[in-house]
Formats: sequence, C-alpha cells, structure tokens
Amino acid sequence: MKKPLILVVNDDGIKAKGIRHLIKIMNDFGDVIVVAPNKPQSAMSHAISIEKVLRCDKVNINNGPQQEYSCNGTPADCVKLALNKILLRKPDLIVSGINHGSNSSINVIYSGTVGAAIEGALVGIPAIAFSLLDYSSDANFDESEYYIRKIVTNIIANQFENNICLNVNFPKSIKNKKLKGVKICRQANANWEEEFDERIDPKGNKYYWLTGNFVNYDKKTDTDEWALSNHYVSVVPINFDLTDYSSLNSLNLLLDE
Amino acid sequence: MKKPLILVVNDDGIKAKGIRHLIKIMNDFGDVIVVAPNKPQSAMSHAISIEKVLRCDKVNINNGPQQEYSCNGTPADCVKLALNKILLRKPDLIVSGINHGSNSSINVIYSGTVGAAIEGALVGIPAIAFSLLDYSSDANFDESEYYIRKIVTNIIANQFENNICLNVNFPKSIKNKKLKGVKICRQANANWEEEFDERIDPKGNKYYWLTGNFVNYDKKTDTDEWALSNHYVSVVPINFDLTDYSSLNSLNLLLDE
Repeated sequence: MKKPLILVVNDDGIKAKGIRHLIKIMNDFGDVIVVAPNKPQSAMSHAISIEKVLRCDKVNINNGPQQEYSCNGTPADCVKLALNKILLRKPDLIVSGINHGSNSSINVIYSGTVGAAIEGALVGIPAIAFSLLDYSSDANFDESEYYIRKIVTNIIANQFENNICLNVNFPKSIKNKKLKGVKICRQANANWEEEFDERIDPKGNKYYWLTGNFVNYDKKTDTDEWALSNHYVSVVPINFDLTDYSSLNSLNLLLDE
Repeated sequence: MKKPLILVVNDDGIKAKGIRHLIKIMNDFGDVIVVAPNKPQSAMSHAISIEKVLRCDKVNINNGPQQEYSCNGTPADCVKLALNKILLRKPDLIVSGINHGSNSSINVIYSGTVGAAIEGALVGIPAIAFSLLDYSSDANFDESEYYIRKIVTNIIANQFENNICLNVNFPKSIKNKKLKGVKICRQANANWEEEFDERIDPKGNKYYWLTGNFVNYDKKTDTDEWALSNHYVSVVPINFDLTDYSSLNSLNLLLDE
C-alpha cells in the first residue's frame, strides 16, 4: 500500500507548539507536507486573500522527514496554495492544528483552524481540525496525542472516506485526571457575550479591545460543550452547506406573491 | 408603532456604491445606523480582530437621516461593535450589502457580507445579506431596489421573526430583460477551481495571485445557481450550526471503542 500523503496546516503559525506536535505525530502515518501561516492567523475564519500577493517559502523549522512551507496568507489560503501549487498529488488527509484554544460550539465559525479543514473537505479530502482547550504557550499536548493517533488510524482504516470533516476538541489536561474517551456530538448552542474594553489613546481618541464571556445556553448532553466539560474528547462532524432546510417552506409562504 | 431600528453594514467599505444605495432604501423603513469598514474587506468571511485595536469614527459620507460610523475592523467586528458600543438598543433588523459580486452557493463561506449578517442572526436579530452579481464599479443597483423593498417589507410585516438569516443574490441587470421574481432555494453544490497565477518579482522571488473558475456541479433546479442563471432573485435561508447531522451515526460506529 502506498504511503498516505498528509497535509498539515494550522492558524497559530508554523512555529506554534501545537503544529510542531501534530507534525511529529503525522510523520508516523505517512508523507507529511506542512503549509502553514508565517504568523498567527487566529480567528481568521474562512478568509482568503483576493487583494494581496501570496508567497510561500520552503523552510526547515525542525528536523524530520516532513517538508515545510511558510506562507503569508490565511489558513484557507495555505490549503488552496498547497493543493494547487505545492503538492504533486491530492493529499489523502488534511489535519489542522493542534490549535491553542477552543474551537468548540460557535467558535467553529470564527476559527482559522476549522476554516482550513473545511477548505479540504470542499474538494473531497478527509479533513480534521484538532484544538486543545488551553491557551497557554506551554500547554500540554501529550494527552491529546493518544486520541489523535486513534482518530487518524480509524479514518485511514476506513479508506479515507470522502466528505468527512471533523472538528475535534480536547479538554485541558488536568493532573491525575485522565480523558474519559471520545464523544461524537453536535455543535452546542453557545455564544460569546461581548464586552468591549474601551480605552483612550495618548492622542485622546477612543479605541476598543474585543473581549467577552463565553456562555453555553444549551443544557443537553449531546453537545460538544457537555462532552468537554465532562472531560471527554468532542468530535463534531461538520458540513459547509449553510442552507437552513427547516425554514424553506415557511419562507415560501413569506416571500412569494 | 415605534420606528424600526436598522443596522446597515457591508464588506466593500462604507463608501462603496452598494451600501450607499442600501442606506437610501433603508431610510424609508426606519432609523438607520451604519457601521461599516473603512476599507474593502471582501472575502473576510467571519474573521474577527482579536489581536488588534478597533476604532470606530462618526462620519458623514452622504447627507441623510442616517448616522454613520467608519470602523477599521472586519464586517463581523462592525456588527459586534455596533451592537455593544454604538446602538442604544438591539436593532430590529440588520442588512448587509449590497455586495458588489456574487455571494451565492459556496461563496457564502468566504463572504464578509454574509459573515456580518450571520453575526446578527447569532444574537437573534433578523438579518439579510444582499449581493448583486456585478463586480463593476458602476453596477446598476436600481432593479434590485424593488425586491429589497419587497423582502424587507415582508420581514417587517412578519414582526421581525427571530432567527431569520437570508442570503439574497440578484442577477446582473440586463437591458430589456426584467427579473422574473424571487425563488427560495438551497445553496448549490458549486465551487471554485483555483488556478494560481504564478509570477516572479523584480528580486527573482516567486509570488502568486489567487484566481480561478467557478464551477457548478449541481444541475438541480432548487438551487440558488439555477435561480440566478434563470434570472430570478435567489433567497437562501442560512444557519450557523455546521453539525453534519446525517453522519453522526456512522461516526459513532467509526470512532467508538
């Protein structure tokens, strides 16, 4: 059997600890090509660069069998460039992350990590976004490794089923408390309640920092938020058809002549 | 009855012809507050600014009863700032656009115009994204006006039903050919086939421009692409729960112990 070709991407930038950890794991599964942003691109969602020039340089951040490219674009740009200009054939798998911080529930729509995975799924490549609920720069990615290996092994064993796009989140590591396992779940109905931090600059002009509190309105037990707060790994299958099928009929009544 | 409060936003920037046209129309429906980007923010998707400072200045672009604010952030930033710092109460409606160019089918995930509308829907405000399939700076927005008025009138008459988020696209105006009406539809399965334009800069380094062809793989007649190519206005109700419910069960088999 031919070795799988695996594209690794992220949104925290090519030097982030999370992607370095992910590359090391993926080297055990196949031929790894890394195409990742040259600087942090968090919360860039599915943005692409249509007004600026893209550059993509071969780099060598850590030793290893992987090939690495550093790109000045967004995570979605990285995937588009990789698929069209860097890789010699369509990859068998795209993995994105490991993100420093949660991409559960509504974060999915803001996340550059997930945006990159969706970009792969769009063209029929199995794609997985991995995120750890720990923002600290010395976050411990060791415990997530076991589950990353398990999920990737399962996806590969299923012959890279097309159209699979997974949003995987890991709870923060807690000493002496093991992760309980994997839960397949739906995106919780949760959201950020913003509180802009309003300040005055030295010239007397107002400016704002976006801050906020994450609030989970969804008390059911089949959600990613429930899984994570109960110390499970959450796996949400995601799709990119945003049509709200449930309201097609009521709208027909609303808008037709 | 109290006058509706309407927030107007876009991604082409506060001076774009499309938003100026939309503001003029919306002034007939209620009290209009404009919070829009100070420069083009096309293809910014649902990106938000978490690493940079936001500014929002009162401006006066055109005379009229509207109040206007120019913001240095993304379309989604504009909505968050408007809701939290500019508006004195929750608006009754958010309208985004009129975008210069299509936001039909897969463009929905890249679009800043739609990103802004979703940001409103997320907090329970009815939101509509309007786009015209004409990229030219002198695009003719006159014909879309009739349908914008009709759709907004219908939404208002339905007492601002919550959780409604519409992606509305107008075909390009064709002389002596009237729009045929409104079609409620689903997002077509269509995508961009990228072709990066590879060039060499004066220093001998490679760079790329993102280009591509839009290809519709979906030949059914219930899609937005069908409606638009048959000279109808397409209206797709959209939602922000990306869970692929259809694959929850098969994944349970795939990943469980």
